[in-house]
Amino acid sequence: MSKQRTVSFPTAELLEAVGELPKNLKPVIWDLESDPDSPLEDIDITIFPYMADPAFLKNVRKAPNVKIVQTQTTGYDGMIDMIGDRADICTAAGVHAAATAEIALGLAIASLRGFPTSVRDQDNNRWNPIQWPGLADRTVGLVGVGGIGEAIRKRLEPFEVNLLRFGSTARTDEHGQVYGTDQLLQMAGQIEVLILIVPLNASTRHLVNAELLAQLPDGATVVNVARGPVVDTDALVAEVASGRLNVSSDVFDPEPLPADHPLWQYPNALITPHNGGNTKAFFPRMVSLLKRQLQAWSAGQDGENLVHRA
Amino acid sequence: MSKQRTVSFPTAELLEAVGELPKNLKPVIWDLESDPDSPLEDIDITIFPYMADPAFLKNVRKAPNVKIVQTQTTGYDGMIDMIGDRADICTAAGVHAAATAEIALGLAIASLRGFPTSVRDQDNNRWNPIQWPGLADRTVGLVGVGGIGEAIRKRLEPFEVNLLRFGSTARTDEHGQVYGTDQLLQMAGQIEVLILIVPLNASTRHLVNAELLAQLPDGATVVNVARGPVVDTDALVAEVASGRLNVSSDVFDPEPLPADHPLWQYPNALITPHNGGNTKAFFPRMVSLLKRQLQAWSAGQDGENLVHRA
Repeated sequence: MSKQRTVSFPTAELLEAVGELPKNLKPVIWDLESDPDSPLEDIDITIFPYMADPAFLKNVRKAPNVKIVQTQTTGYDGMIDMIGDRADICTAAGVHAAATAEIALGLAIASLRGFPTSVRDQDNNRWNPIQWPGLADRTVGLVGVGGIGEAIRKRLEPFEVNLLRFGSTARTDEHGQVYGTDQLLQMAGQIEVLILIVPLNASTRHLVNAELLAQLPDGATVVNVARGPVVDTDALVAEVASGRLNVSSDVFDPEPLPADHPLWQYPNALITPHNGGNTKAFFPRMVSLLKRQLQAWSAGQDGENLVHRA
Repeated sequence: MSKQRTVSFPTAELLEAVGELPKNLKPVIWDLESDPDSPLEDIDITIFPYMADPAFLKNVRKAPNVKIVQTQTTGYDGMIDMIGDRADICTAAGVHAAATAEIALGLAIASLRGFPTSVRDQDNNRWNPIQWPGLADRTVGLVGVGGIGEAIRKRLEPFEVNLLRFGSTARTDEHGQVYGTDQLLQMAGQIEVLILIVPLNASTRHLVNAELLAQLPDGATVVNVARGPVVDTDALVAEVASGRLNVSSDVFDPEPLPADHPLWQYPNALITPHNGGNTKAFFPRMVSLLKRQLQAWSAGQDGENLVHRA
């Protein structure tokens, strides 16, 4: 047992689901919007709300003694700027992997099998069989080989595709060759389905730019379940508007996609509103992670998914 | 080498793709609608058009010496009634497995992740995040363990579902327990996603009837990639209309679904127009099968997928 610490939970629902805390951890509810019942000075560890408004995340600065923040997301891009480099950051990596990987497969299949056209035909009571490309026998470029990338690879594996994986550096792992993202441009001409699941950072921002998009073959589909700014949106819109490329995306830049954004209008764009990690599988998996984290913190350990140390 | 025989191809495109035939096989083009160039009496083997109108399939009766028919579909329900019990039937089982299995997964994910709602929101420029159920952690009942059923099982396997498989009789195979379809009713209360891929025959017609549907839990999704009459359509429509169940289906009874059918109108129904096996993967895979069949027929053998002997 380590010293006595206070952990803030964003909702009473989450605290209740986690159940009794280890004896040396005291819970308090703090949604980061209104002030908590306990003094802000008491809080040592803060669990963030899921997909909270960044304006509220900044409020963690008001709690001067917070040494650990726990996100409910996998990504933490921009978070150090928001909260200051004053607390360790633990993410919810793993919690979202299954849901995000499954939406990636779903977005790919939906686009390659024409589901958006089927929905619109349905609204017109119209039976309209079409031969769509399909996923089998396609060459798929999977950019990102982290936790969710691996979850996508596993799910793609039985779909009889020709899979090319890309990571930050070229290497070989237990599943074979990983190309470096520096080889993406020269290999793009083969890639019929480009799936993006890299973290957003300086080296991945606009990784998919006009030059890369131009190399993709006619009719290729871009599936983005990473972060919006991994793609140069204006360049993508130009290729989608011309009908040369398709996009199936759960993330956007800007996000939320504004009502007057041109991307909404294209039938060869499939837009889901950042639903990636958010399914009924999420809450029980988040609760399981928090139970493990609380045990670790109680014992004075770092916990899982420590992605940044202040 | 066996005796000299004539093989009819439904299109010149298919004959050209297959290339040169074994020396003792002579090709002729016959679409079953208009008369072929050669006398109908000469034709020994007929390759059917893909998804042809049954009215035209009957015309194979005009060719009195046809001893083998080769379908381009996996199912052959009703075919013996149509053409008479006068020719061996070889199907295209295997050719469609990848495409049909992939649309089954796609239909399940699309429904469980709310893609139809996303498409309709997109048409209104509306960013509308919703927590959908998702596929991970769901109990999936897969009814059908034949070629395509196995292709679906393989693809489902990495999606972190609780999979229950059902076949015509209870048994154990290399992937574990297969329950009998006679156990489906008693186990239906657990099944959140019911995927149908059984052949249509007397024992599977209306296998999914009002009684079975009533046992599925609230919010369950029925995915039909088998044949329309495996489900009692009226009973399904009633459950979908009430909002209690969802359906994602590629096949219907009647099919094509008439423009005035009630099913079109429900947002919790996702309708694709029997696109299951029909992707760009289809033609090359069909051509490969035909090349193997022609070699077998040339040698006086039965060929693959002989499902009925006259």
